[in-house]
Amino acid sequence: MLENISTAKVAGGWHKQYSHTSSSTHCSMHFAVFLPPGASEKNKVPVLYWLSGLTCTDENFMQKAGAFKKAAELGIAIVAPDTSPRGENVPNEDSYDFAQGAGFYVNATQAPYNTHFNMYDYVVKELPALIEQHFPVTTKKAISGHSMGGHGALMIALKNPKAYTSATAFSPIANPIDCPWGVKAFTGYLGTDKSVWAEYDSCELMQQAKQADYLPMLVSQGDADNFLDEQLKPQKLVTVATQKGYPLTLEMQAGYDHSYYFISSFIDQHLLFHHQFLTA
Amino acid sequence: MLENISTAKVAGGWHKQYSHTSSSTHCSMHFAVFLPPGASEKNKVPVLYWLSGLTCTDENFMQKAGAFKKAAELGIAIVAPDTSPRGENVPNEDSYDFAQGAGFYVNATQAPYNTHFNMYDYVVKELPALIEQHFPVTTKKAISGHSMGGHGALMIALKNPKAYTSATAFSPIANPIDCPWGVKAFTGYLGTDKSVWAEYDSCELMQQAKQADYLPMLVSQGDADNFLDEQLKPQKLVTVATQKGYPLTLEMQAGYDHSYYFISSFIDQHLLFHHQFLTA
Repeated sequence: MLENISTAKVAGGWHKQYSHTSSSTHCSMHFAVFLPPGASEKNKVPVLYWLSGLTCTDENFMQKAGAFKKAAELGIAIVAPDTSPRGENVPNEDSYDFAQGAGFYVNATQAPYNTHFNMYDYVVKELPALIEQHFPVTTKKAISGHSMGGHGALMIALKNPKAYTSATAFSPIANPIDCPWGVKAFTGYLGTDKSVWAEYDSCELMQQAKQADYLPMLVSQGDADNFLDEQLKPQKLVTVATQKGYPLTLEMQAGYDHSYYFISSFIDQHLLFHHQFLTA
Repeated sequence: MLENISTAKVAGGWHKQYSHTSSSTHCSMHFAVFLPPGASEKNKVPVLYWLSGLTCTDENFMQKAGAFKKAAELGIAIVAPDTSPRGENVPNEDSYDFAQGAGFYVNATQAPYNTHFNMYDYVVKELPALIEQHFPVTTKKAISGHSMGGHGALMIALKNPKAYTSATAFSPIANPIDCPWGVKAFTGYLGTDKSVWAEYDSCELMQQAKQADYLPMLVSQGDADNFLDEQLKPQKLVTVATQKGYPLTLEMQAGYDHSYYFISSFIDQHLLFHHQFLTA
């Protein structure tokens, strides 16, 4: 059961927010969808899934990225889930980088998080099935995200290369097993066995990827991003990609920081990148 | 003395926030400026002043309007002031439509508001002087705004037709002396003498305008806007414009509401409208 929370026309299409009870996270989840003009059962459109970063909800990208004009022009729907389970019954702690607002797109194995913090299953399985059931979309999917959501997008695409045509990221946490944000989150959600961590680390996953499973990837990174050296480390992903011949492009953008001002400056380029594969 | 609060690169240009002590409002004021790429002392650019609506700050337009790509392309700076004086020493009340966050762009005459609530002088005199002193801009100015700020933009342009090349508005409070928001604000700031109210009412000001002072105006209004009939009343402005032969265009946009999703859908059109006059 989807409950419609809000509806607004934008760029000739529609932005709508919904809530529903999730079988993955065992709580009420919010998500938002942008439907481009003309999307209908007779004219289904492909979908870009967008995963947001720490502290975000379904709203940040939709309000700040400025993506709708280009998505409308290209005929791409956009779906943005929340970044974690939420609510009174969901474990939380007083920090911005763990628990609510910081699900890290994994399936938690550690109590008390393992009941609700199953964002991997939610994003990979439950949400696309729900979207394909209720909205005029094809099964063609691309995935993108920012920071923690950039990690999520690349990691999910590497683990499910047949499910997505292409993956992009802004300022991703490219090697979470080797940065403070990732170590904190993976320890909390997955415990201390680092072989489990590797299953959610884009560098490790790319190292294991078979050539038949390669899919096109684009990463945009601002060189004035305060988190670049300590948390994000996109060069580590480039090193693996170069060794493997993986089709990853890293574009360093001079002067840009970690904010949505950066995302809004290059989101059109990412939409065009996905469009060529979504329509191939 | 301007204090720089934040700086972020966006669309090849720069978004910057500042605070300063205002001689008009007798408190610390925030504003934001977008400078397009290439703006410099040798290449000064014209300015669009943006006035926001009830409850907003300098941030709403900058984060949500999606204006920077087109403004960068056209070489237009954008300046967004806050919507009122703020702070512990500034009178406030527990409502969204009066006092802090709701300055209505007038000079208050009534205690206790008349010390600080002089947003008219701030926007018309103090802020442009400050901007022209500290940033690489010409003296060419256009003005736009949303809702309460749409009232502000049209009213200020009508009272200062030589100072602005053009004025536009999204969903303006077009006839504030005849709607609940306007009556509440004007009573509180200006007292009960309605002849004083008329000095800040766009319909009244347009009625008095001399033909030599006409300037091009564009108003965009969503027909699914919940505030249209009770608060906004753009048709009353059209009635005056038609009587007077005033160059006002009202574009009704089917299905759009009062939100920034509406503004982001048509801001490029407004920038192009202003551009033709700013560069004439």
